[in-house]
Amino acid sequence: MIFPESIQSLITALERLPGIGPKSASRLAFYLLRAPEDLAQDLSAALANLKSNTAFCAECFNITDAGRERCEICESSKRDAALICVVEEALDVVALERTGGFQGKYHVLQGVLSPIEGVGPDDLKIKQLIERVARGGVSEVIVATNPSMEGDATALYLSQRLEPLGVKVTRLARGLPVGGDLEYADQNTLLRALSGRHEMN
Amino acid sequence: MIFPESIQSLITALERLPGIGPKSASRLAFYLLRAPEDLAQDLSAALANLKSNTAFCAECFNITDAGRERCEICESSKRDAALICVVEEALDVVALERTGGFQGKYHVLQGVLSPIEGVGPDDLKIKQLIERVARGGVSEVIVATNPSMEGDATALYLSQRLEPLGVKVTRLARGLPVGGDLEYADQNTLLRALSGRHEMN
Repeated sequence: MIFPESIQSLITALERLPGIGPKSASRLAFYLLRAPEDLAQDLSAALANLKSNTAFCAECFNITDAGRERCEICESSKRDAALICVVEEALDVVALERTGGFQGKYHVLQGVLSPIEGVGPDDLKIKQLIERVARGGVSEVIVATNPSMEGDATALYLSQRLEPLGVKVTRLARGLPVGGDLEYADQNTLLRALSGRHEMN
Repeated sequence: MIFPESIQSLITALERLPGIGPKSASRLAFYLLRAPEDLAQDLSAALANLKSNTAFCAECFNITDAGRERCEICESSKRDAALICVVEEALDVVALERTGGFQGKYHVLQGVLSPIEGVGPDDLKIKQLIERVARGGVSEVIVATNPSMEGDATALYLSQRLEPLGVKVTRLARGLPVGGDLEYADQNTLLRALSGRHEMN
């Protein structure tokens, strides 16, 4: 035993976080030891009630405060309820909100179809999306799952399920990322950028 | 406010950790939200009593369990008390212990001399080291501060302070790291490796 018990248990817990290996965990633990007392305390308090203080919105399944039935966005009358953007997880909502370019509502699937990991349609909030659209008032569903194999498969599945409801289903555009470099773009991205080319006006 | 309050406070606390930016903090927070409940709880518990459960060894100033005066290494009769290895921080003790190649005792300075950051000799455990050596029974002090500008300056200062006590002061060897590539070694390391060359036997 090189470390005292209390530090070892912190390192063990930190190592379980994604992207944090044994060395980073040790470094973080010792940083926390030297940092002003309130950092360790703040973190501890924020973690203690993390799950009990949060809940999922009953409408879009985004994360919201516990005790609230629907999230801020679902409750807002300023957002266009006819436009639903389907994303994989709550972090994607944050990314889209940061752009300020979307004024509709969201639907968080809480994952993506993945036969390899055993995730099927029933493990995601797909049934709830279909029901939501079937209730009417929705004109377009933007499928904003990740531009990955699983994301594409999920998008295809969703469009097949939504089609009978007579709703327009769209997918986010693919091409070169803004500020990117053509030279470093991978083959598939470049192919998509070529086939998706548009007239300059 | 995109995130619920409880998640935002966790993200804010995580962002204060070194090497964790806003994006990593969000990702970690959402990971903790989905991870089995006990991870957030384990982390919270380990952090809550971090400082109250640890103390500094009165002899070498390494970190040890609270309520203990001297650490395991200082108390061990198997370790050679005539050999003291001076390091900057507790993590360096761990690194040296992992090698299994050192059987002496340690002295943790708890920092390094740095005029830029306003760290002088009185801010480190230098006085305690001098006193420890002056008490006698020490034949060699290995100065294992980092091979950096500050580490070298600290080593020089220590050797000047220790010299009058008639103790041998040594410094860790410098050269090419094992498994390293000559092509990628920086100029200073290569110069050191050249000047420190030794006969093959």
